[in-house]
Amino acid sequence: MIIVLKPEATKKDAQEITRRIAALGLKPLYMPGTERTVLGAIGDERILGKLHIENHPLVERVSPILTPYKLVSRDFHPRDTVVRIGGIPVGGKHFTVIAGPCAVEGPRQMLLTAQAVKRAGAKCLRGGAYKPRTSPYSFQGLGLEGLEILHEVARKVGMPAVTEVVEVGDVAAVERSADAFQVGARNMQNFRLLKALGQSRKPVILKRGMAASVDDLLLAAEYILSEGNPNVILCERGIRTFETATRNTLDLNAIPHIKQHSHLPVIVDPSHGTGVRSYVTPMAKAAVACGADGLLVEVHPNPKEALSDGHQSLDPHEFGRLMKGLRPFVQAAGRRM
Amino acid sequence: MIIVLKPEATKKDAQEITRRIAALGLKPLYMPGTERTVLGAIGDERILGKLHIENHPLVERVSPILTPYKLVSRDFHPRDTVVRIGGIPVGGKHFTVIAGPCAVEGPRQMLLTAQAVKRAGAKCLRGGAYKPRTSPYSFQGLGLEGLEILHEVARKVGMPAVTEVVEVGDVAAVERSADAFQVGARNMQNFRLLKALGQSRKPVILKRGMAASVDDLLLAAEYILSEGNPNVILCERGIRTFETATRNTLDLNAIPHIKQHSHLPVIVDPSHGTGVRSYVTPMAKAAVACGADGLLVEVHPNPKEALSDGHQSLDPHEFGRLMKGLRPFVQAAGRRM
Amino acid sequence: MIIVLKPEATKKDAQEITRRIAALGLKPLYMPGTERTVLGAIGDERILGKLHIENHPLVERVSPILTPYKLVSRDFHPRDTVVRIGGIPVGGKHFTVIAGPCAVEGPRQMLLTAQAVKRAGAKCLRGGAYKPRTSPYSFQGLGLEGLEILHEVARKVGMPAVTEVVEVGDVAAVERSADAFQVGARNMQNFRLLKALGQSRKPVILKRGMAASVDDLLLAAEYILSEGNPNVILCERGIRTFETATRNTLDLNAIPHIKQHSHLPVIVDPSHGTGVRSYVTPMAKAAVACGADGLLVEVHPNPKEALSDGHQSLDPHEFGRLMKGLRPFVQAAGRRM
Amino acid sequence: MIIVLKPEATKKDAQEITRRIAALGLKPLYMPGTERTVLGAIGDERILGKLHIENHPLVERVSPILTPYKLVSRDFHPRDTVVRIGGIPVGGKHFTVIAGPCAVEGPRQMLLTAQAVKRAGAKCLRGGAYKPRTSPYSFQGLGLEGLEILHEVARKVGMPAVTEVVEVGDVAAVERSADAFQVGARNMQNFRLLKALGQSRKPVILKRGMAASVDDLLLAAEYILSEGNPNVILCERGIRTFETATRNTLDLNAIPHIKQHSHLPVIVDPSHGTGVRSYVTPMAKAAVACGADGLLVEVHPNPKEALSDGHQSLDPHEFGRLMKGLRPFVQAAGRRM
Repeated sequence: MIIVLKPEATKKDAQEITRRIAALGLKPLYMPGTERTVLGAIGDERILGKLHIENHPLVERVSPILTPYKLVSRDFHPRDTVVRIGGIPVGGKHFTVIAGPCAVEGPRQMLLTAQAVKRAGAKCLRGGAYKPRTSPYSFQGLGLEGLEILHEVARKVGMPAVTEVVEVGDVAAVERSADAFQVGARNMQNFRLLKALGQSRKPVILKRGMAASVDDLLLAAEYILSEGNPNVILCERGIRTFETATRNTLDLNAIPHIKQHSHLPVIVDPSHGTGVRSYVTPMAKAAVACGADGLLVEVHPNPKEALSDGHQSLDPHEFGRLMKGLRPFVQAAGRRM
Repeated sequence: MIIVLKPEATKKDAQEITRRIAALGLKPLYMPGTERTVLGAIGDERILGKLHIENHPLVERVSPILTPYKLVSRDFHPRDTVVRIGGIPVGGKHFTVIAGPCAVEGPRQMLLTAQAVKRAGAKCLRGGAYKPRTSPYSFQGLGLEGLEILHEVARKVGMPAVTEVVEVGDVAAVERSADAFQVGARNMQNFRLLKALGQSRKPVILKRGMAASVDDLLLAAEYILSEGNPNVILCERGIRTFETATRNTLDLNAIPHIKQHSHLPVIVDPSHGTGVRSYVTPMAKAAVACGADGLLVEVHPNPKEALSDGHQSLDPHEFGRLMKGLRPFVQAAGRRM
Repeated sequence: MIIVLKPEATKKDAQEITRRIAALGLKPLYMPGTERTVLGAIGDERILGKLHIENHPLVERVSPILTPYKLVSRDFHPRDTVVRIGGIPVGGKHFTVIAGPCAVEGPRQMLLTAQAVKRAGAKCLRGGAYKPRTSPYSFQGLGLEGLEILHEVARKVGMPAVTEVVEVGDVAAVERSADAFQVGARNMQNFRLLKALGQSRKPVILKRGMAASVDDLLLAAEYILSEGNPNVILCERGIRTFETATRNTLDLNAIPHIKQHSHLPVIVDPSHGTGVRSYVTPMAKAAVACGADGLLVEVHPNPKEALSDGHQSLDPHEFGRLMKGLRPFVQAAGRRM
Repeated sequence: MIIVLKPEATKKDAQEITRRIAALGLKPLYMPGTERTVLGAIGDERILGKLHIENHPLVERVSPILTPYKLVSRDFHPRDTVVRIGGIPVGGKHFTVIAGPCAVEGPRQMLLTAQAVKRAGAKCLRGGAYKPRTSPYSFQGLGLEGLEILHEVARKVGMPAVTEVVEVGDVAAVERSADAFQVGARNMQNFRLLKALGQSRKPVILKRGMAASVDDLLLAAEYILSEGNPNVILCERGIRTFETATRNTLDLNAIPHIKQHSHLPVIVDPSHGTGVRSYVTPMAKAAVACGADGLLVEVHPNPKEALSDGHQSLDPHEFGRLMKGLRPFVQAAGRRM
């Protein structure tokens, strides 16, 4: 850790801080400069957190040298992690497509979608029973009934099921019905929920928050791993920027960055990442090209009637074309789908 | 609601949609143009949500005319709402300062802070027992024990207490210990929590999320009001932008905007809004100048040792100067503190 | 154009505005609603600009129906435009790679780079003689001497040359030395420069500004086309967001969006778009996958010694691998390189 | 400067870099750590720029200790600079209001505005002759004729004149007609223009770019000062964020930050900063409260007919009320107007 002192800090102030660093068992460094004095601390700086050096009134700035996360870091776990949803691998040489409607609306809608996406080559089925919606006047999901429909349909077509969990109190019910949890962008920093999911061993698809940096996302994953659940799949789904041409700005830079800094698999949600039906396929191709391990795609048998996110959902025919168009890119990436 | 059709939409497509609008009891309008056909719907467009017109493949864009919120809107409730925390009014002619440490660390730290902020003129005491922290390795708050300390100290010094709630499961305990709930930026769209708080009658201080537009904030408040709790105080605490000189970008434009569109009181948190101790006082003055109804300020008896957010906390002496410096601005604003 | 009036606007106010719309030869529409009155204007709304209706104190909001640009729009020019730099086509079925150093540093550096990038398959040579740099203490480019070196080397290796122009006063000199102008992100809204380039017939590579929406970019291109120069190539190079893991956030969503709304070719600059050498290749692959027409890549014979942007420049060997790795994706996209 | 090496860097790599640091006359530091090696350089790190250490393939990250600017820094010039426009001081104990229309439209409009703003207490007159507009189809200003009208009117009413300059080629003409240059947000990084203005001794009002950090703004000012012109006034006018309720997000945090880091005066433009007429006055009050040295306000005799930015312009009556409402806040701030 590098500690830059304010110009008014004296040698005595610097000594007080270096003494506290040494007391924690780290090696302190003293670097008086022409305009500022700089201090360093060599060793596992994560334990320096206890000192709260950034609070010191004579400290101008503190720069950590190491990443703030550890269990998710590639530094400590150089090989790619492969997470299995049901029996389906995500990560490594696989390119895994998870598809289904934004919201479970009923048994017929789910069955039609499940059969269609399976036929087209998707490996897991998604569908939301609990829907976090910006307005209280929007459809909020079928709840428990939705979970049961998803479970039933997934069993019938033989696909693992993925569904969103929004509340600690629902974790047990979701765990019974689904093969993987999804944590939505709005709950990425619902730390109680993350800790509760850390107690499970079922995989967690953790979506990046709209204002979350990649480091924030990795720290959120660290919450789950540090509670004991190693099965985390990260998901890039767009961030909020000034651009309004698309619903969000899909940050594909995050894919090579995550691949370099973490061993966890990472997938892309081009449906939320664009919010526009006709941009889903090109961005799905871009996702595989830049190294993503899979996709989360919204498919609805009749997007015109969808109770949520219809404008960004593909119909089964469009999804079929997406999958067909994707194949040469998956191959170019040296992956199998 | 204004509905812009794609160039390829035919007259028949337009008729299909206007028929559906009319079936809901709204008056449809048909406006064929040179390059696009535009449709309108006159009446309470909020019921149009059921049609999901934005999903229609021949619809290019949908622009609502009215705000998406209703209960929080000044259109339906022209006069300023005054919310009372304990007996303390927030809103109207009052300028109310709520102060205390970021986190409850122990009885002595709380008591020292409470006495100091009361002496300087703060009206309510804040202190966090449940702390949402970006890293799992940071101090997470004292939990129930923290709630008890806060309750005890608040009673002793005779100030109402405000504390953060992060989980539906904690609502009852927080309600017993505090006079107002605080919902943090990360939970602004934790809709289950908002609904649970809507069942209470205790005031809720709802902080704006880091990526939340003012409309998102007002819709989050609408969740609470629509469940029956009218006692919501909005709080601007900075948004996330590209600027890294400050922790967040305090968006004071939001104050006149909220005042124009909503009847709810709105306060400002200059501590999180800047993240820099020496900027708290100038931004507190700016807050009262542009029309805010109060402040939420972090104060710690010894910021150097604070377990969280010490770099942005004032010590009792600095807080005293803030309050003194604030007075002429409160007076200039025609308020009383 | 849709005009939403404030609640306090009377029928007479509405009539005043509809009269002014009709006077311009457009068909006005009057839609009184329950909470707001809405007006419409049917016809080429671009001429409505003269009325400045948005200034009217009783107008709450104005929503245009049509795009604000015309000459760059696919609505008026459905087929893809192919722009030629020297004899090299950009757009259509081609995928065109433009490569070279950020800055021209000397004849040897340029020649080594030019030979290397040509060998690897790049079709055009780039190199900056005028460098806009954030700090006045950074290397500012060789100016005229740099232009001459670029011209000489490009002639020698037989590649068209692309270079940045930053000032109206330099347009003539750059036009003599290079086969295409580049307008950098910081000058995207230097409208005088755009107008001057509109007087030329040489192609202009127009880079998106850091805070520019895609609509702003298309309007900037409209400046050039409306002066008479149809040879514009758009370039996505990343926008500024809160994310600091990468230098900019490369907004690949812009590619399908531009392809849908404009007939102009669009290329991607993954060097500035990421700012990190090891992310250039994955993002180059993503660019071709989502529909871009080419790349602008920084290559330097010895990035360690580069006078600017060395951290994001590839050396000739790395560039060779990029081109090799790109081929299967170019093929998957049905393009030729 | 702190240099963090990649994990794979050897001791020999570190020595190579420290040797290069020492060769420049700085004192190098070597800090081997458990996971990374960190190097330091003590002395005036600005000369380190020549080494381009950030380009080195084994360097992970470089953190400067000192600010990248020098002449604008308070470190080297602790006392507030007061800049004079005509005879009017900006900075120190003064609070200076500069007002006038966005664009010069004609002699009558300018004279009416000038008389009104002078009467209300404004000290300088603004008016644009060259207007940078997003669309080529918007009014672009009267050019030279506008300069003459402004000059004439300013002389007649006895106020110094401020006007925007957009092009190196116009600097001489603007210098003859006006008492201060204004550089607009879109030209903040038009470095050639900044250098040309550095050759003048007339004051420059430098507006912050929409995507510019405060450091970028200070570096842009450094361009002007380093060419010899010390008379720079900074201007906060809002940045571009995801929030669309206002035209820009006025970043008032920038005011205390600039005051702490620079000796230059800084004013606020609440007209562009909000884009909404009714928010101009509250944000003007907030500006003086947080420490700004003045305002730039758009006033038009008849905003309904204004050729640009009418929606955010005040009429003379509204401006009179702004000035009256501002007085108690100016007094509270211990300033005179």
